[in-house]
Amino acid sequence: MKCIGVMTSGGDSPGMNACVRSVVRTALAKELTVKGIQRGFAGLLDGDIHEMGRRDVSGIIQRGGTVLQTARCLEFMEPKGQRLGLRRLNEEGIDGLTVIGGDGSLRGGIALHKMGFPVVGAPGSIDNDIAGTDMSIGTDTTLNTIMRALDALRDTASSHERAFLVEVMGRKCGYLAAVGGILGGAEMILIPEAAFDLEDVAHAVQDAYIQGKSHALIVVAEGAQHDINQVAEYLRQHEVGFDVRLTILGHVQRGGRPTAFDRLLATRLGVAAVNELLAGNSGVMVGLQGGEIGTISLEEATSRQREVKQEYLDLFNYVS
Amino acid sequence: MKCIGVMTSGGDSPGMNACVRSVVRTALAKELTVKGIQRGFAGLLDGDIHEMGRRDVSGIIQRGGTVLQTARCLEFMEPKGQRLGLRRLNEEGIDGLTVIGGDGSLRGGIALHKMGFPVVGAPGSIDNDIAGTDMSIGTDTTLNTIMRALDALRDTASSHERAFLVEVMGRKCGYLAAVGGILGGAEMILIPEAAFDLEDVAHAVQDAYIQGKSHALIVVAEGAQHDINQVAEYLRQHEVGFDVRLTILGHVQRGGRPTAFDRLLATRLGVAAVNELLAGNSGVMVGLQGGEIGTISLEEATSRQREVKQEYLDLFNYVS
Amino acid sequence: MKCIGVMTSGGDSPGMNACVRSVVRTALAKELTVKGIQRGFAGLLDGDIHEMGRRDVSGIIQRGGTVLQTARCLEFMEPKGQRLGLRRLNEEGIDGLTVIGGDGSLRGGIALHKMGFPVVGAPGSIDNDIAGTDMSIGTDTTLNTIMRALDALRDTASSHERAFLVEVMGRKCGYLAAVGGILGGAEMILIPEAAFDLEDVAHAVQDAYIQGKSHALIVVAEGAQHDINQVAEYLRQHEVGFDVRLTILGHVQRGGRPTAFDRLLATRLGVAAVNELLAGNSGVMVGLQGGEIGTISLEEATSRQREVKQEYLDLFNYVS
Amino acid sequence: MKCIGVMTSGGDSPGMNACVRSVVRTALAKELTVKGIQRGFAGLLDGDIHEMGRRDVSGIIQRGGTVLQTARCLEFMEPKGQRLGLRRLNEEGIDGLTVIGGDGSLRGGIALHKMGFPVVGAPGSIDNDIAGTDMSIGTDTTLNTIMRALDALRDTASSHERAFLVEVMGRKCGYLAAVGGILGGAEMILIPEAAFDLEDVAHAVQDAYIQGKSHALIVVAEGAQHDINQVAEYLRQHEVGFDVRLTILGHVQRGGRPTAFDRLLATRLGVAAVNELLAGNSGVMVGLQGGEIGTISLEEATSRQREVKQEYLDLFNYVS
Repeated sequence: MKCIGVMTSGGDSPGMNACVRSVVRTALAKELTVKGIQRGFAGLLDGDIHEMGRRDVSGIIQRGGTVLQTARCLEFMEPKGQRLGLRRLNEEGIDGLTVIGGDGSLRGGIALHKMGFPVVGAPGSIDNDIAGTDMSIGTDTTLNTIMRALDALRDTASSHERAFLVEVMGRKCGYLAAVGGILGGAEMILIPEAAFDLEDVAHAVQDAYIQGKSHALIVVAEGAQHDINQVAEYLRQHEVGFDVRLTILGHVQRGGRPTAFDRLLATRLGVAAVNELLAGNSGVMVGLQGGEIGTISLEEATSRQREVKQEYLDLFNYVS
Repeated sequence: MKCIGVMTSGGDSPGMNACVRSVVRTALAKELTVKGIQRGFAGLLDGDIHEMGRRDVSGIIQRGGTVLQTARCLEFMEPKGQRLGLRRLNEEGIDGLTVIGGDGSLRGGIALHKMGFPVVGAPGSIDNDIAGTDMSIGTDTTLNTIMRALDALRDTASSHERAFLVEVMGRKCGYLAAVGGILGGAEMILIPEAAFDLEDVAHAVQDAYIQGKSHALIVVAEGAQHDINQVAEYLRQHEVGFDVRLTILGHVQRGGRPTAFDRLLATRLGVAAVNELLAGNSGVMVGLQGGEIGTISLEEATSRQREVKQEYLDLFNYVS
Repeated sequence: MKCIGVMTSGGDSPGMNACVRSVVRTALAKELTVKGIQRGFAGLLDGDIHEMGRRDVSGIIQRGGTVLQTARCLEFMEPKGQRLGLRRLNEEGIDGLTVIGGDGSLRGGIALHKMGFPVVGAPGSIDNDIAGTDMSIGTDTTLNTIMRALDALRDTASSHERAFLVEVMGRKCGYLAAVGGILGGAEMILIPEAAFDLEDVAHAVQDAYIQGKSHALIVVAEGAQHDINQVAEYLRQHEVGFDVRLTILGHVQRGGRPTAFDRLLATRLGVAAVNELLAGNSGVMVGLQGGEIGTISLEEATSRQREVKQEYLDLFNYVS
Repeated sequence: MKCIGVMTSGGDSPGMNACVRSVVRTALAKELTVKGIQRGFAGLLDGDIHEMGRRDVSGIIQRGGTVLQTARCLEFMEPKGQRLGLRRLNEEGIDGLTVIGGDGSLRGGIALHKMGFPVVGAPGSIDNDIAGTDMSIGTDTTLNTIMRALDALRDTASSHERAFLVEVMGRKCGYLAAVGGILGGAEMILIPEAAFDLEDVAHAVQDAYIQGKSHALIVVAEGAQHDINQVAEYLRQHEVGFDVRLTILGHVQRGGRPTAFDRLLATRLGVAAVNELLAGNSGVMVGLQGGEIGTISLEEATSRQREVKQEYLDLFNYVS
């Protein structure tokens, strides 16, 4: 192996730049050439590819987003697009590829791997929904962003004696909502993994009111059974004591400077990805497994969804 | 004057606690008794009033929201409620009142002042919409919150080549949108003070795309002529190059630890408010006027709205 | 077991409050009484002990330091003091004790355990020097504080083309220096675990200069073989290209709001500590072991020092 | 005027980049050519000068330090160096110069102005020691950095019942110490403008101890009459109740992302500097004067030192 390619794909997440930097510098330290592929698989098909040196990754470890950019690419979901992608890699003299991204991006990696091209994935996802890694690149930063937002909302909720519904990201995975709710001192968390009655939500808010709390905070994942507007409407139609307000944290959850945890995780995964390629492995994702960096096959990583640990749901019941 | 009361009223803003602390400590230093009135005029009518000592305001300078809480009070808008308020103040032996809050709160102060009760106001508002003060308590903190959100959104917008519409607070005053847009490097700002064509917005986004920018950012005040959903819909119906996303910053803008500017302003205004009461003045608001603390009559402060300086709109045109 | 005690001891670390909150609420959920012991073992001997309810731990999850305070206690190092401590616990009707703190605090726990009193420890340490846990409460927050300081120093170092020596905490354990150096993009890290020649430091700085870098950053642990002043003096006496400046981060490393990681870890450890006491275990410390919460005997946890992983030192060599 | 030059000089301060960006974009909007001079007057003499376009200042508004870098230049203090500087400006076709920096940098500007070259200064200084402007670029950011450090130190000081001495920047001007002390809830502030007895410091700490406070905080400016080590030694030799610790904030005060206030001030000053040059003015500094941007002659701005307002010292006495 003489030249490796690196791309970021799917939704961006804070720490992707730290991972790109790590891949580039590790590869250079091992005397490989590195080529950066802009805009994920879309850029691969367009040939938007350039060689990267040490300086190209200077000063990016602390930046959110991804300097390689990212894009959706329907074309690469078809065999024709995949073959074109393989051709481009060969044209560029790339011998192995690191794909940093979420579920869909890793599936793109599987396609190339099946055609015989060496591919190693690294999990980038703010939702922490990728199986085979305890945490994905970006999750810790997003969690801190959510936590600070909840801290800020509690200030204002307490000042007005209000109930606040806060929507956080997580279409299929309630990790951010559950852990955010624990850390932000929420009264209730509503996650995709658990069905719930609107009546129970109203009871939780009423309880907080009756106990004399100055506010109630409910964290709602995007993919919860009832969406935040439905919950708000129900609470407003029933007497719950507090005035009800809702806020959707939205895209700010995806941005911001990566935390120490994400920079370290991303750096470790970048080194590991290069080492796997050099060791002749392909079709695997590197991930954080019990404190150490391990691997899992891309097939397995993409075949199931990470779920919130039962430990965290129990935790919430104790401390909330 | 032997005993003064202090309340926060209307929407809470970061720095109100620093102002309460300053009022309490200054009054104590001048050997007055201080009584805190919880939940604004509502708490006044309910007699939710308690004496405050030095320790009651320890460790609150850095906290958002208001420890005195705040509430709306329709009853106090009627003469009957206002007479009851006056009775309560007399029952408690309060000789003068400091009201920290926005437009509506200052109007409540006028009512008491007109009945002969000494009242001094201090401007608390995240929107910076109060006349007679260059900045209100909370505006600087909110502006920093918006600025950091825009910094974060730029990270992710650049990674995806997107146009982002961002709604910030400001129903009648475009200060936050205009200055936020300058500081956040926006392509366009849409404020209540200026009519605009949706076509011009589309042109601004197209221009950014054609110039090869990696993203476009448009900051929209709550009270802009067309609301953010209308703007988004228009852009999606017209080819503007970038994918369009929208985000509403919402209530997080109101929370958070007060900045140095807000802590200092709030502290200065608290000292001044006590001094005005002791000097026998009433019916005035203390405010920041050209770097110094001055006063303006409550009537004048509430009779007009602060507008965004033309200087800032020109500034935006130069540097955006 | 009907009543448990909780104390924080040794140096404070961010997240201790989250752990106290978790111990209190979990114990209450299990229908135990909880007593807080102020100022560690010193407060135990003085009988500075009070019952704690849910409200006593409201709003503390986000605060640095420890509401239970902490102090050194030479008296408790002697058998006489330890017997007095045991007597106090019995007087208060406390059946089991949770000690949150570092090495010395856990040794105090061993003394009580050996006299037959049920004790469970939880690791609080900003240095991450405690064996038997992958991370201690406070380490992640401190690491983020160091990282932000290094980000800030790079700004100014680059503007002036300077070499910066930065001292971070860690008398025996180089974790903060090593990981901080990786995340902050340092040119060299000097840690207690590794001897080094001053000449090599000078070479590293010269190399950075010759390669055309705009600055050089060297992170020095408190307990490094040569202290930061010696290193600075050596560099100044030898021509290294850059001007040399030094800064000692000092006590600010110990403060600040706990991060999401520390709040979650502290909450998990608090629940686990109560569960261990209820399960009849004593003389153990709860810790983070490969992503899960496990236990280790207090004897073992205090018999050796955690060292920086070789993986991290290798990492540094690749990416720096 | 067809081409203007821009440089940053002296110590860097957060917001200098925002000012450079504003100068460049305003000049381009007015159809001027702009040339950036690297490393202040040193770079001018070396001819380290390059044309700047819109893109060269993209994404720098949020960065600390200065992309134009800065350096000391003894050579430019002599007439010979100044003549060489003038020659370089002419060689490059530069018709007017904007110098962003502190006292020494503005004096450099005077030299060129006296030789007939159009020069406009903008005040950049974290100390806020420049006369003729209410605030300098960088002061607000530094004040926020100091405030957050004091917030963090209070957490740990309270946990241990300690007295903390904290040294902040300010060799001749006590602004940062005085205002930082107000905002950080200090017990005493020691500034260059006011002589003090060590005995009074000891009394202040003893008072805090006797009143039952959990800590004492003393903020010491670099240029205070007795330096921080002398103060610490005195306190340790006298019984003051608390254990005494000291910390020197150091260079981190100079770094970090500029706040909203600094970005706005820097942007306003950049526009004004270009407008002054275009209006044919020279030998002046643009500054913040009572909320508006005004000018002062460079001679006057550099002939005296800004002092801390008496209002702030009074304020401290009321609220501390």
